[in-house]
Amino acid sequence: MNNLKRVVLLVITISYCFSPSHQHRPPRLSLLQRGIRKKLENEPTSISKGFTTYFYDQTLDHFNYNPQSYTTFKQRYDLNFKHWGGSPRHAPIFAFLGDEAALGRHPRVGFMMENAPRFRALQVYIEHRFYGESNPLGSMKKSLQNATIRGYFNSAQALADYAEILIYLKNKLSAHNSPIIVIGGSYGGQLAVWFRLKYPHVAHGALASSAPILYFDDITPQDAYYSVVSKDFWDVSESCYKTIQKSWLEIDKIASKPHGLAVLSKKFNTCRQLRNCDELKEYLDRMYAGTAQYDDPPTYPVTQVCGGIDGAPKGTDILGRIVAGINAYLEDTKCRDTDYTPSYETYQGWNWQTCSELVMPIDHGYDTMFWPSNFSLSEWSKHCRRSFGVEPRPHWITTYYGGQDIKLILKKFASNIIFSNGLRDPYSSGGVLQNISDSLVAVVTTNGSHCLDLESSKPDDPEWLVTQRKTVFRIIRGWIKEYYATLSATHKLAL
Amino acid sequence: MNNLKRVVLLVITISYCFSPSHQHRPPRLSLLQRGIRKKLENEPTSISKGFTTYFYDQTLDHFNYNPQSYTTFKQRYDLNFKHWGGSPRHAPIFAFLGDEAALGRHPRVGFMMENAPRFRALQVYIEHRFYGESNPLGSMKKSLQNATIRGYFNSAQALADYAEILIYLKNKLSAHNSPIIVIGGSYGGQLAVWFRLKYPHVAHGALASSAPILYFDDITPQDAYYSVVSKDFWDVSESCYKTIQKSWLEIDKIASKPHGLAVLSKKFNTCRQLRNCDELKEYLDRMYAGTAQYDDPPTYPVTQVCGGIDGAPKGTDILGRIVAGINAYLEDTKCRDTDYTPSYETYQGWNWQTCSELVMPIDHGYDTMFWPSNFSLSEWSKHCRRSFGVEPRPHWITTYYGGQDIKLILKKFASNIIFSNGLRDPYSSGGVLQNISDSLVAVVTTNGSHCLDLESSKPDDPEWLVTQRKTVFRIIRGWIKEYYATLSATHKLAL
Repeated sequence: MNNLKRVVLLVITISYCFSPSHQHRPPRLSLLQRGIRKKLENEPTSISKGFTTYFYDQTLDHFNYNPQSYTTFKQRYDLNFKHWGGSPRHAPIFAFLGDEAALGRHPRVGFMMENAPRFRALQVYIEHRFYGESNPLGSMKKSLQNATIRGYFNSAQALADYAEILIYLKNKLSAHNSPIIVIGGSYGGQLAVWFRLKYPHVAHGALASSAPILYFDDITPQDAYYSVVSKDFWDVSESCYKTIQKSWLEIDKIASKPHGLAVLSKKFNTCRQLRNCDELKEYLDRMYAGTAQYDDPPTYPVTQVCGGIDGAPKGTDILGRIVAGINAYLEDTKCRDTDYTPSYETYQGWNWQTCSELVMPIDHGYDTMFWPSNFSLSEWSKHCRRSFGVEPRPHWITTYYGGQDIKLILKKFASNIIFSNGLRDPYSSGGVLQNISDSLVAVVTTNGSHCLDLESSKPDDPEWLVTQRKTVFRIIRGWIKEYYATLSATHKLAL
Repeated sequence: MNNLKRVVLLVITISYCFSPSHQHRPPRLSLLQRGIRKKLENEPTSISKGFTTYFYDQTLDHFNYNPQSYTTFKQRYDLNFKHWGGSPRHAPIFAFLGDEAALGRHPRVGFMMENAPRFRALQVYIEHRFYGESNPLGSMKKSLQNATIRGYFNSAQALADYAEILIYLKNKLSAHNSPIIVIGGSYGGQLAVWFRLKYPHVAHGALASSAPILYFDDITPQDAYYSVVSKDFWDVSESCYKTIQKSWLEIDKIASKPHGLAVLSKKFNTCRQLRNCDELKEYLDRMYAGTAQYDDPPTYPVTQVCGGIDGAPKGTDILGRIVAGINAYLEDTKCRDTDYTPSYETYQGWNWQTCSELVMPIDHGYDTMFWPSNFSLSEWSKHCRRSFGVEPRPHWITTYYGGQDIKLILKKFASNIIFSNGLRDPYSSGGVLQNISDSLVAVVTTNGSHCLDLESSKPDDPEWLVTQRKTVFRIIRGWIKEYYATLSATHKLAL
């Protein structure tokens, strides 16, 4: 997912922001930083180049046999045959598993597209049900208003979709012996891991980048995400970290004064006057988290922000430094849009997914550079009941996919999964960072960020990133080589 | 399942039984031989001995989030703590996965009950959703009449039920590190395999007896079941085999004559007059298949039947020999109930399960001791549409669980499954009969029958059966030993 979402509950703190009304405010689902993430200098690779779009008549409900479940909907998938070695050679298939966004321009298909020629691989890119053109009722809004239809919008159904389409393709192309490698990042990375675990007869291996599969059911501490964000800032500059840490109380102080919000609005150049001080604090929260999550070379946003904060003229006060930090990162003079009520389908869809099954309890905790706050499941449930009338099932993900004691469980079960993580990415805290076995391998980079390795390579990529991608390439090549050997031994096929 | 069912379509043959009306007769779902299987001399072990019954509030629909799916129903499970070593010792849990019958007196829990003391294992026995007391609407009939509710009656939901209950139990008993071994036979054996594959974080290993996991989607030839039945008879007596083979035409001949059905009814001592000759042929079909499937020591029903057929006085005609065969097996003088319209819930439930997802195409083919007939999916679908208004999904089982190329797929994926099969059991033809890897092991006995190894041992058990059970015991002990070693290494726990 471009933006795994933080489930943030603003709770009662000792700050001035506290007022009785806050106690009853629903926890907010913070979409990740998209809005604040700086526009990429190099536009992402266009998925449309060389790809052709198809639609599959997908089963709405794979796990039931009531009349509704026999309904189908059109699911989009894109194919690129350009480099494929063909079925007689059992040439591989790379399948990029769509995440919580429409197919289209997607920076994360770079790795797949660059490596397809080397593997002579067919490229498949499948859209996740309910996003983009794969919505049963034509639009996310309509689907989410329909209490029956939205029920089918979940990960288990999505994995079964991928299985059906990939099996269909193999049959259609007579490519029964072509090994499939599934690829995904963030939520898509979770899906890739889960797909290899649940459908080993369809996917021969999985490359899962920045997939926080352990950020469920309290396997990972709730403050782990923000601890990494804070550590990223600390590593760049202790003074920057401390300035940010102090800024929250400053904001509260000013906000509590007469016309305080007007003062803050002006200071931060907000597009319209702030409604309350939380609005500003959460804007900043999203920005810091975003710079940490996408702390990509060559600019390294955290360094940019801290450069601004630390580099402000002597005597600049705390909030002045924060403003300087924002300006150093965003580098433009536009007003700052602190209003965070996105209407686009990714936000809406993700709100549903996290209100039903994907409950990832993430909050500041008490030991980060952010104001103290704790995730409360009961508040989250209240929000979900209010939004959809449903109760989240916080234990379902671990019931269905596991997660607890993953090393013990998978040491002698499963194979061929790469858990790729960059430690600057706050989501790496919910990832698998150690090898589980010879073929359940963690590829970890100290300086990597969220899903960076899946993006197209650039001339100025640092050495560690080049090495990371080479390592991943080598591992996948190893899987495929071994697969052909086993295939040959099992089927006595000449390859 | 006590009785994996054959999906038999009587098709047009050259026999006299042919009449235009047969062409349109729906294919019949033959329940396995229960009705004709001879009463066991030793009554099956009572499950109630030492077990206590509990009920779990089970989620009706694990894979959806529509309002209906939040409904729960009471699911029965039985526990026996007598031999359990307790959670501080991480003592194992044996979980018998219910199949298509109510919990209760079940011959297949013998192995579990006998071995629990040796493993100091907690015994759990979970009823399959919709059977027995675990029916959402209180009765199978009511549930099957409800097009929405019956939709939730399938294997994927059943596996998720087992996962929920077992996780709940582990939490409740603080037995997080107690390894669970799931056990099942026939359909329950399929469930055990699939459970280990889908929920390795819940089950550490699976013992699957007589589980024809490959009898789907044409992985196994349609006539494989009847080929084994025929081979069982051939191995006992070539002349017996040939007598049976000739008998079908004899029946047709007599049936085609005036009052032919009355003659046959009298000859075979049917409880009421035969409606057509198919009724008699299918009665015999079920009996032969049943004797082969349950060709258990010490009596060996196939040998009994052939003893009667071959031992009839010289000059006895073909049908007279067949009658002698039946009498030798059933040993009583009651009339023969050829009417096959069972009303009990197992039959009804299984009819639904095979009409939705569990499509196992089984028929005589052209080279067995039975009359030629072929399975027709379109006829089967017609029957299902007529019964329930639904279309079977014949490819779903292999889509979700796999099956094709199982050796290639699982060689380096999964572990700790015993595929136990007796080659006299016709369902062994759809089972895994060769080791896939070190820990995906086939235990095969030449003389074994359907699920025999799961039953209680008896003083006169033949040596091969005693050895088979010992082998299974040793393998499971090995898994648990290895588990404790890994647990200790991973958690650094003193055991």
